[in-house]
Amino acid sequence: MIKPIGTDELQPLFVYDTDAHEALSHEAESLPSVIISSQAAGNAVQMGAGYFSPLKGFMNVADAMGAAEKMTLTDGSFFPVPVMCLLENTDAIGDAKRIALRDPNVEGNPVLAVMDVETIEEVTDEQMATMTDKVYRTDDAEHPGVAAFNNQGRMAVSGPIQVLNFSYFQSEFPDTFRTAVEIRNEIQERGWKKVVAFQTRNPMHLAHEELCHMAMDRLGCDGLVIHMLLGKLKKGDIPAPVRDAAIRKMVELYFPPNSAMVTGYGFDMLYAGPREAVLHAYFRQNMGATHFIVGRDHAGVGDYYGAFDAQSVFDEVPAGAMEIEIFKADHTAWSKKLNKVVMMREAPDHVKEDFILLSGTKVREMLGNGMAPPKEFSRPEVAQILIDYYSKL
Amino acid sequence: MIKPIGTDELQPLFVYDTDAHEALSHEAESLPSVIISSQAAGNAVQMGAGYFSPLKGFMNVADAMGAAEKMTLTDGSFFPVPVMCLLENTDAIGDAKRIALRDPNVEGNPVLAVMDVETIEEVTDEQMATMTDKVYRTDDAEHPGVAAFNNQGRMAVSGPIQVLNFSYFQSEFPDTFRTAVEIRNEIQERGWKKVVAFQTRNPMHLAHEELCHMAMDRLGCDGLVIHMLLGKLKKGDIPAPVRDAAIRKMVELYFPPNSAMVTGYGFDMLYAGPREAVLHAYFRQNMGATHFIVGRDHAGVGDYYGAFDAQSVFDEVPAGAMEIEIFKADHTAWSKKLNKVVMMREAPDHVKEDFILLSGTKVREMLGNGMAPPKEFSRPEVAQILIDYYSKL
Repeated sequence: MIKPIGTDELQPLFVYDTDAHEALSHEAESLPSVIISSQAAGNAVQMGAGYFSPLKGFMNVADAMGAAEKMTLTDGSFFPVPVMCLLENTDAIGDAKRIALRDPNVEGNPVLAVMDVETIEEVTDEQMATMTDKVYRTDDAEHPGVAAFNNQGRMAVSGPIQVLNFSYFQSEFPDTFRTAVEIRNEIQERGWKKVVAFQTRNPMHLAHEELCHMAMDRLGCDGLVIHMLLGKLKKGDIPAPVRDAAIRKMVELYFPPNSAMVTGYGFDMLYAGPREAVLHAYFRQNMGATHFIVGRDHAGVGDYYGAFDAQSVFDEVPAGAMEIEIFKADHTAWSKKLNKVVMMREAPDHVKEDFILLSGTKVREMLGNGMAPPKEFSRPEVAQILIDYYSKL
Repeated sequence: MIKPIGTDELQPLFVYDTDAHEALSHEAESLPSVIISSQAAGNAVQMGAGYFSPLKGFMNVADAMGAAEKMTLTDGSFFPVPVMCLLENTDAIGDAKRIALRDPNVEGNPVLAVMDVETIEEVTDEQMATMTDKVYRTDDAEHPGVAAFNNQGRMAVSGPIQVLNFSYFQSEFPDTFRTAVEIRNEIQERGWKKVVAFQTRNPMHLAHEELCHMAMDRLGCDGLVIHMLLGKLKKGDIPAPVRDAAIRKMVELYFPPNSAMVTGYGFDMLYAGPREAVLHAYFRQNMGATHFIVGRDHAGVGDYYGAFDAQSVFDEVPAGAMEIEIFKADHTAWSKKLNKVVMMREAPDHVKEDFILLSGTKVREMLGNGMAPPKEFSRPEVAQILIDYYSKL
């Protein structure tokens, strides 16, 4: 099985020993505590679940700058983005060596993790600007990732953490949330040798399904891990149970037995395009995937990134840092000329009108009116689940 | 795929819609609330996870008596044990129609479920005695299940519930806890047609492994679900991560790819022997198993039950109530005469000395001294994981 990044064994930071867990939960209640940012909470969940292995905790400024500037920490190890705990104010910490990190996203702000404080540093404006520029490739405060990163405060608290829970991700998505440990275990149990991971946060229409089939066929994969980004709903989002049901129906009907699993992870989107694609690949290797699909404008937003920047960025990854291989894809769509789904760049003789393309808005409108999109766009059984949902709104 | 008990679709009582979940969590904080018993909490978790489907909530006394006396509720539906919420005192409820049920097993007693109160009844001594006698087949107060059942109070609160979390089971055993929904989904994904479930709460030695192989071979199963009872440690118990690692290593090395999955569920043992075996089979059908292994003295304690009572009890199950089939087993052990693991009742010419039998105490003593049990008893790779654990105590 493919090894995790940087070590022989995955190193999740969740406290698995139940006695130790109980003792730590108890200790945490008497420690000085801070409510951390949503970004930091997402990082803690990913570290707890083993996805960011072998990170031991939140980075100090030197490591964060190294990650941003050259994806390399001060000890020479590889990590593609800063993983920081940035606070407005550290008065509550004082000179404590051990603190509780409280969850901003759960009622009552329960303790998410305990940190051994190593450094408390003020990040300069110049350092923030450098990290922003390197990670997001823009300083535009309208960019949602840039805004979230820069709205966290300037005091960086670093040190190793022990994680007590998976925030709201496991508790609200109990049938879908998986740790990297669980996915590794299941890949092992299923006996898969070559495993491709697919990132999504939406129901999958025919083009997505066929993209997965193409990747599996061309790479010779015996397994596909559909790995959903889980999170709070935004207006217009399909609720998680509906999305999951639609994807599971697709897997049931259109994938052979023991060839696909439907899973999810808990993290906030960075919208960092290329750099986020590297992070996405990083944690897919940790969960045991040998390949990862990166399509057009992967993890992008607006027009900040070139269509294939999230593919070419892998040339910048230090040699030997990652073993996972990237399946570089383009958009896929039904070709009226060829009567099948094709990768658009592989049909150079096609013009836009040769494809069946529907905007997200158009698809939602059709489903909302009880109409299934054409079968060249959506599997009818998948469309029916979505229509049933819209009909109850 | 095998249908769940009594309905076409599994009916878990967990609130999957994240908006509804948030609204209910919020509402719960302003409802009158009671801290329920550990037994009731285990029942709520099982209902939330779909294992007790299609139960809608806690039974009133008439249904509980029906379950105890003839495994049949007043509406004619089948359930093998009373599922009651018994309280010492219901003053906090007053005439509220909707109450919050708080978790006795988690720090701070968070709300586990919300109930629409239908009845509040005092259970008579005679009714308690009848239920105890029917379910546990003894009135001995030393029996741990009898003691737990009778120490809960006499006020029965009944009504449908909506479940908000899975108590400490999912949060403390994040890689192992599974809902019935998840296991059904995974059986579907794996493409298994005949699936046998194995109940355990300990590491598995060679005799257990071979029992599973025997069941799979004889039944023609393509899948095995190892389904662990999860719970708080008792003195001398192997910690969950060690037990899990030992079982996973066994699966990795001694089961073919895609033939076994390692999972767990959250519930308190009843030690009700025969009647608990029926309950065990009930929730294994709900999770999608077609067969269930019931061995000698299944779910028993002390000398309360005959060796095969937990098998013959299935003759008392109302016809057509369950579709799952029971694999009726005896103890298994290595035969020195035949040089393999055999089911003991199938070796009638053997005397005790013809088998390699080691007591739990003896095995723990050997492992504690860094000695692997003989290879006829334990797989060496499994023994090594247990030795590593004991060496660190």
